[in-house]
Amino acid sequence: MDYIAPVKAIHLALDDVAGLADDLAAGLHGDLDHEMPAHILEEAGRFAGETLAPVDREGDRVGARFANGTVTLPDGWPAIYKAWAEAGWNTVDLPPEWGGMGLPVRLATACMEMWTSACMSFSLGPVLTQGAVDALELHADRALKEKYLPKLVAGEWTATMALTEPQAGSDLAAVRTRAVKAEDGTYRLSGQKIFITYAEHDLAENIVHLVLARLADAPPGTKGLSLFLVPKFLVGDDGTLGARNDVWCTGIEDKLGIHASPTCSLAFGDHGGAVGWLVGAENRGLACMFTMMNKARLFTGVQGVAVAERAYQRALAYAKTRRQGRAAGAPPDQSSLIVAHADVRRTLMTMKAMTAAARAIAYAAAAAIDRARHARTADEREAAERLAGLLTPVTKACCSDTGVEVASLGIQIHGGMGFVEDTGAAQQYRDARIVPIYEGTNGIQAIDLVTRKILGPGGAITEATIAVYREVGTAAGAIAEPRLRLLGGIVGEAADALAQATAWLRAPERTPEELLAVATPYLRLFGLAAGVAYLAKAALAARARREAGDNDPIHADTIATAYFYAQAIAVGAPALARVVIASADALPGPESLSDFAA
Amino acid sequence: MDYIAPVKAIHLALDDVAGLADDLAAGLHGDLDHEMPAHILEEAGRFAGETLAPVDREGDRVGARFANGTVTLPDGWPAIYKAWAEAGWNTVDLPPEWGGMGLPVRLATACMEMWTSACMSFSLGPVLTQGAVDALELHADRALKEKYLPKLVAGEWTATMALTEPQAGSDLAAVRTRAVKAEDGTYRLSGQKIFITYAEHDLAENIVHLVLARLADAPPGTKGLSLFLVPKFLVGDDGTLGARNDVWCTGIEDKLGIHASPTCSLAFGDHGGAVGWLVGAENRGLACMFTMMNKARLFTGVQGVAVAERAYQRALAYAKTRRQGRAAGAPPDQSSLIVAHADVRRTLMTMKAMTAAARAIAYAAAAAIDRARHARTADEREAAERLAGLLTPVTKACCSDTGVEVASLGIQIHGGMGFVEDTGAAQQYRDARIVPIYEGTNGIQAIDLVTRKILGPGGAITEATIAVYREVGTAAGAIAEPRLRLLGGIVGEAADALAQATAWLRAPERTPEELLAVATPYLRLFGLAAGVAYLAKAALAARARREAGDNDPIHADTIATAYFYAQAIAVGAPALARVVIASADALPGPESLSDFAA
Repeated sequence: MDYIAPVKAIHLALDDVAGLADDLAAGLHGDLDHEMPAHILEEAGRFAGETLAPVDREGDRVGARFANGTVTLPDGWPAIYKAWAEAGWNTVDLPPEWGGMGLPVRLATACMEMWTSACMSFSLGPVLTQGAVDALELHADRALKEKYLPKLVAGEWTATMALTEPQAGSDLAAVRTRAVKAEDGTYRLSGQKIFITYAEHDLAENIVHLVLARLADAPPGTKGLSLFLVPKFLVGDDGTLGARNDVWCTGIEDKLGIHASPTCSLAFGDHGGAVGWLVGAENRGLACMFTMMNKARLFTGVQGVAVAERAYQRALAYAKTRRQGRAAGAPPDQSSLIVAHADVRRTLMTMKAMTAAARAIAYAAAAAIDRARHARTADEREAAERLAGLLTPVTKACCSDTGVEVASLGIQIHGGMGFVEDTGAAQQYRDARIVPIYEGTNGIQAIDLVTRKILGPGGAITEATIAVYREVGTAAGAIAEPRLRLLGGIVGEAADALAQATAWLRAPERTPEELLAVATPYLRLFGLAAGVAYLAKAALAARARREAGDNDPIHADTIATAYFYAQAIAVGAPALARVVIASADALPGPESLSDFAA
Repeated sequence: MDYIAPVKAIHLALDDVAGLADDLAAGLHGDLDHEMPAHILEEAGRFAGETLAPVDREGDRVGARFANGTVTLPDGWPAIYKAWAEAGWNTVDLPPEWGGMGLPVRLATACMEMWTSACMSFSLGPVLTQGAVDALELHADRALKEKYLPKLVAGEWTATMALTEPQAGSDLAAVRTRAVKAEDGTYRLSGQKIFITYAEHDLAENIVHLVLARLADAPPGTKGLSLFLVPKFLVGDDGTLGARNDVWCTGIEDKLGIHASPTCSLAFGDHGGAVGWLVGAENRGLACMFTMMNKARLFTGVQGVAVAERAYQRALAYAKTRRQGRAAGAPPDQSSLIVAHADVRRTLMTMKAMTAAARAIAYAAAAAIDRARHARTADEREAAERLAGLLTPVTKACCSDTGVEVASLGIQIHGGMGFVEDTGAAQQYRDARIVPIYEGTNGIQAIDLVTRKILGPGGAITEATIAVYREVGTAAGAIAEPRLRLLGGIVGEAADALAQATAWLRAPERTPEELLAVATPYLRLFGLAAGVAYLAKAALAARARREAGDNDPIHADTIATAYFYAQAIAVGAPALARVVIASADALPGPESLSDFAA
């Protein structure tokens, strides 16, 4: 088994960083059995390690295959998907009303991490389906819900998000797919969509597309987009599948990675119009999509954590079996395991600490989403909603960047073997690269963070969040143990740097262009400050557990990881604040960007 | 044409950073026509853009194919290689005695950059051949030289470096290939080599392997390695090809990238022994390899520059044609070119500035190699040799890391299109990833820098080099123009940070383990300090050219690029010095590195 779900580390992060145990004890999730999280994590991790991980490499080699309008996934995948769905794994945080388990988003996040570590191409279908469930639950009318949600929640059918068109990627205002209302109240859609994940496959008997399209009399731009449900097969009132709808897969992309996840082009209405049902109000399609954005972006960020974790496990296993050279102080005439070389260990610790920080940020964002739904008071729910909005772009961008960087370091640990496709390290480097791109590029995330969150109506949550980070730094800094004391100091420095950069962004003389020019380094700075603060929080909890007599060596490991992250990575925070403050004026205008080639 | 050789930028870097015009004027390269460099660069750039670049994508798709012991390169490659060699391009800096042009290594470096930008898989064969020429010229006896060098210099035959074995990657002490002396003074080799670049192909009629092997009575470790010349076809005294030698390609690797560059496994002596000729003295094989290491590592680093340049050109071209969204201040109802978005421009400038810095470092290293050979006095030559030794690991590691990072940013500029294989952006991300690995991993480079260079016998060159960087900072800081003044300050800060970290490394209480633990961040710091200093040097020269009446807009661009690099990237130097000084103690021992999985 080449992936072993790090259940203990995940559970500790859920409890000690993301406050899951506390929230359960406080009754935020009803009468949920406090043993339930451990049980869920164990079982989801077992499925990941035993069933999904073994098919990951072959899935990459074979890939999804397209022929005559149909897509075939690798051998065995339909049975695996069926087993996964029948075990209830599609339903973790979905609403009980429609058959879901109704568990915290934090648990769904952790499960998704494990399945994605095991096989990213497999996990993407469920991510889309679950996102569609959220959208339908919030915006569809009762009849649509009753017809579709039980099947989608159970995973018997899957769903897609059909947004992108050739001219409309980051800019959905440019969507051209048209919808015309029919006499029976349904709509007929026509147009082309591209880059639609899992829009055709052989895992389930029906595929439900949520499609952004434009009515004839709609206003231009995003205010003229409506959301439609367009099933592959029409569904009778008794739930049976009827006629094939006029939506067709016209091809799949030849991609760098996630080869077994089909990325489809879809043609709507080539034969008279695809039948669609309106979800939400006309011209409110983008708002319907936005309501599910925090969770969708959280799950995307988690993909970065997941790839990083798998890359770390693979690299560590290699470093503990590959012998090369003699480490400092090793006996002569025997080559050392490469893990004994300090430079190799630095790389491994960098991978491990970055992964832990990314996980901590993602789980903190998941906690905010849970609390936005379940906190006791409206004020608490609103504050949590704002925190979720703040942490979501940070999670999506920082965790996805972490996935790419850690996967690249994983190749490096393997040396020449990392560059050949056999080891799987190369596959992760390829798979990871999509995550900073889709579900809003990381540049879009940075712009969202600065313009809608930091400078938006909920700006006060930023100060409150920085104050929380400072408190963690103060608490760690007050501890006599030198590593915790130093860690606390670095947390404080990073929080100060973030406060300084935030104040600069908020100064009234800033121009929009200046803000956009430094959005990316600001987001990175936020990620460093958040990462080191959450790891310090974990370290403080680990120390408390040890003081309470828990001698599990993982607690020493948690403290060591936080300390390494602080000393080797987070000390870069002040320099990033300086980049935010001083580099906007260094950015040339579009006209002067040239390569002076030839 | 999707690659246009940046001849003007390259020529300016050669003259203004690497002092080529000055050295030519001083007569260091004999009576070389001062028009020659421009001519060479133009013609090499033309070949790159017109002939090599167009076959790069197809080469990736088709790849090198192995069947029945032979390797076939993509259609058309033999003819292209023949045209390239017949134009004399294999011979740029090779010795005139054997048919070479005898031009400065700086020019060969620049040519190699352009060919590699155009088609990395193509350029790797010549890199190996030229390395072998260097080794033979320095160490082979006259008879071997006369038989092989004219053909290898002309590129009629190609060569390999056959070092790696399954158990001997970074650690050549573990080489097991055996050599036995025959009665006629030749040797019989037997053993397996892996990862041998261009060890079998259909571009040339003979392939000459330089093979590290061990004589029966040799001492263990690297002191028992000898270097042998083993041709694919034996060569008669009249230069005609004779019998097939007992060296066979047994397969090629399925790799992440450089698909058209065959990475071969070789079997020596399966049918009685491969006939080899000793190069240099017995048991001195590693020393023979080491003498060519600076140039080989320089050329490897240049591959990173080359991929980065191509990725930048591709991304810039995309950003100037792709429309998406509306930039700040753009008119309504029209989508903007994405280059108009500040965040996109920041990414492009990051790519451009990192590429320029990497190029400047590489050309500075090439200048040191030239001066080590051609400077007037023995003292000057020795100082230049030490500088070459210092800059070589920095070049190899920083430039190769730059290639990976810039190629990744290039994907990001393309959004979803970057993840599909059509654009070529994904190919560069794959191709680039080998460069930090081969020719000594970047970890090995960092260890070489710290243990053999900074703490080695030529340590004084470090202080002299830092002093040169400080002088550049002082000169820029003395200029009234605010950007140059600020640039000068950041150059000075980076030099101070490097000096501080260097002093820490040199403190007598350092343990070997501590030094190895921080070698990588030290190398990165060196790269930042060198990069910003060389770009500042270029900026000062650009200003002088403008003051002398040269109004070419490239000079403003040079200054803008240096300023951006300083404000957005090089300000990280003090934090890296802090990482060097404080993070060794944060590195856990091998026994405590665990993932605590399950």
